[in-house]
Amino acid sequence: MAAELADPPEESVTAAIDRVRSSVDALLAAFIDAHPAPVADPELAEGHRLLKEFVVKGGKRIRPLLCYWGARGAGGTDDAATVAAGAALELYHAGLLIHDDIMDGSELRRGRPTLHRSLARPTKHPVAEPFGHCAAVLLGVLAQAWADELLGAADPAVRALFNQMRGEVIAGQYLDVQTHLGPSVDRALTVIRFKTAKYTVERPLQIGGALAGAPGALLESYSRFGLPMGEAFQLRDDILGVFGDPGITGKPVTDDLREGKATVLIALAFAEATGSALHLLRTWHGNPDLDDARAADLRQVIVESRALTRVESMIDGRVRTGLEELRTCAIDEDARQALTLMAGQLTHRLA
Amino acid sequence: MAAELADPPEESVTAAIDRVRSSVDALLAAFIDAHPAPVADPELAEGHRLLKEFVVKGGKRIRPLLCYWGARGAGGTDDAATVAAGAALELYHAGLLIHDDIMDGSELRRGRPTLHRSLARPTKHPVAEPFGHCAAVLLGVLAQAWADELLGAADPAVRALFNQMRGEVIAGQYLDVQTHLGPSVDRALTVIRFKTAKYTVERPLQIGGALAGAPGALLESYSRFGLPMGEAFQLRDDILGVFGDPGITGKPVTDDLREGKATVLIALAFAEATGSALHLLRTWHGNPDLDDARAADLRQVIVESRALTRVESMIDGRVRTGLEELRTCAIDEDARQALTLMAGQLTHRLA
Repeated sequence: MAAELADPPEESVTAAIDRVRSSVDALLAAFIDAHPAPVADPELAEGHRLLKEFVVKGGKRIRPLLCYWGARGAGGTDDAATVAAGAALELYHAGLLIHDDIMDGSELRRGRPTLHRSLARPTKHPVAEPFGHCAAVLLGVLAQAWADELLGAADPAVRALFNQMRGEVIAGQYLDVQTHLGPSVDRALTVIRFKTAKYTVERPLQIGGALAGAPGALLESYSRFGLPMGEAFQLRDDILGVFGDPGITGKPVTDDLREGKATVLIALAFAEATGSALHLLRTWHGNPDLDDARAADLRQVIVESRALTRVESMIDGRVRTGLEELRTCAIDEDARQALTLMAGQLTHRLA
Repeated sequence: MAAELADPPEESVTAAIDRVRSSVDALLAAFIDAHPAPVADPELAEGHRLLKEFVVKGGKRIRPLLCYWGARGAGGTDDAATVAAGAALELYHAGLLIHDDIMDGSELRRGRPTLHRSLARPTKHPVAEPFGHCAAVLLGVLAQAWADELLGAADPAVRALFNQMRGEVIAGQYLDVQTHLGPSVDRALTVIRFKTAKYTVERPLQIGGALAGAPGALLESYSRFGLPMGEAFQLRDDILGVFGDPGITGKPVTDDLREGKATVLIALAFAEATGSALHLLRTWHGNPDLDDARAADLRQVIVESRALTRVESMIDGRVRTGLEELRTCAIDEDARQALTLMAGQLTHRLA
């Protein structure tokens, strides 16, 4: 009896991170199993199977973890509601990635074939969109509807943030697919703000905070921490997409260059390169015939144009700004430690 | 003073239909205007403009009207909530149509260029999906997120029906895009049940009913009326897609044949035709080079295989079954009259 009245042993932040990740995984699997296809059809069953595999097996659960620490930071203790909201964010994100891979023409994601590639079928109808593309658009839309269902009857403040988040990430993606306009540093910075900083960091933190009834001042702190950290995370990701180890990133290191991703890194290289270096960029960036040797040439241009150095220094500045906010804001101490740890993982991570 | 106590003059069902349609239009326009793009960008602004035009200027508002009469049928009087739910259904539908047009490779919708065509831009990146396709996927996703926002904190029974509806229509669409498997009468019948009968008629009626607290028995009546009426509506639409007047349907009468739409009508023709007639179908149905003369040949095959007669008799049987339910179920008399009128418009409409 006495044991029940004693304080529970303190849980370390890394143990809490593992526990939340497991809870989110378990909830996602249970939710998807509880939503079988409403029609018995072998192709649809295969689509559901691939969607479940995509959602359950992949992902670092960054958004659910930020949502969780956003709630804990405000003194929240309702883990079930926070895990459900986090799982909803993860489902929404799965839908977004599935569509993103179609838009980029990506073959691989997390080391496996992308959904529209797995679902590719020989077609007899040259006018219609290929089946794999249609199926993946629909599975992405389904994941997004499920996200909404899983979020359920959350309170109006949470719903409002979720609605804002959807509008923002769609806008960021809309700008990102404007490849017909050529690389632009300004547009690339807006894209990382909307598609990553707000979507991946600021809003998940705030949704968690709102779930725990955080005061407005803390939600503002989450913005001042989340936006620079989120931008630094994306800038790091862009560097890894060009210079990273494919064994760790799970995708060939030439993919971003071959797809012609208009990152800040690339836009800076275009802005600074001249003569034959600029010609190389124009010819080979976004060229489906890019091979490893040409990719190495492009990397050299990116280094010599000082684009890489400039992006590294942009990351440093943003990390410094974010940490300053995190050090001084009025937040639960475990959350402060956990978010500081995650800031390190996100912006200087090895993977 | 006395005038305020008197019963308001009776509103005819046609006047109510006009009023609901206007209220839905006004709410949709106001909602979209209240959701400007969160980033100033000319391409995104153009996307929003086209999306608003698509939502506000088009459509017969079938789902909002069925939702309204579903509520009235159960004695509902809260017009504002019913109109909001109806507008949400319409926004969801807009998102679905935008994606549907991409999947079918359609050039025209309601007599205007489809969104992915309006947004087509010359591209430099052969690997990536064309900008117009990406933009239209995103605008469709945005419309669906807006639908969800507009439905808001509806009660759990309404939300549950909305969630079911989304799962069902996605499943129906998933079956419909399996053009690599060739036409099948069974699959076509499942598609019209999920993609039209449940999605367009049964669920909107039930959502309206649930908003007004309808008893389970009435929701079941809505199924028994809605499913056959919805199937009859789609079978009629399939006939009009092949034999209709383009001046009324708003799209060239060869489009469905050229796109290779696997309707019940076409699947029956494939199942019944033999010899040179079957050869004609195999060669020209879904062939992008189909011209008016070949389309006339296909129409003759559809008539001579008796597929047209059989579909007409399927429509008759379903209308009879639906009307029988509507004549006998326990429902408000105005709603009975309005739904009978709409049944006529949907299944034997001239457009």
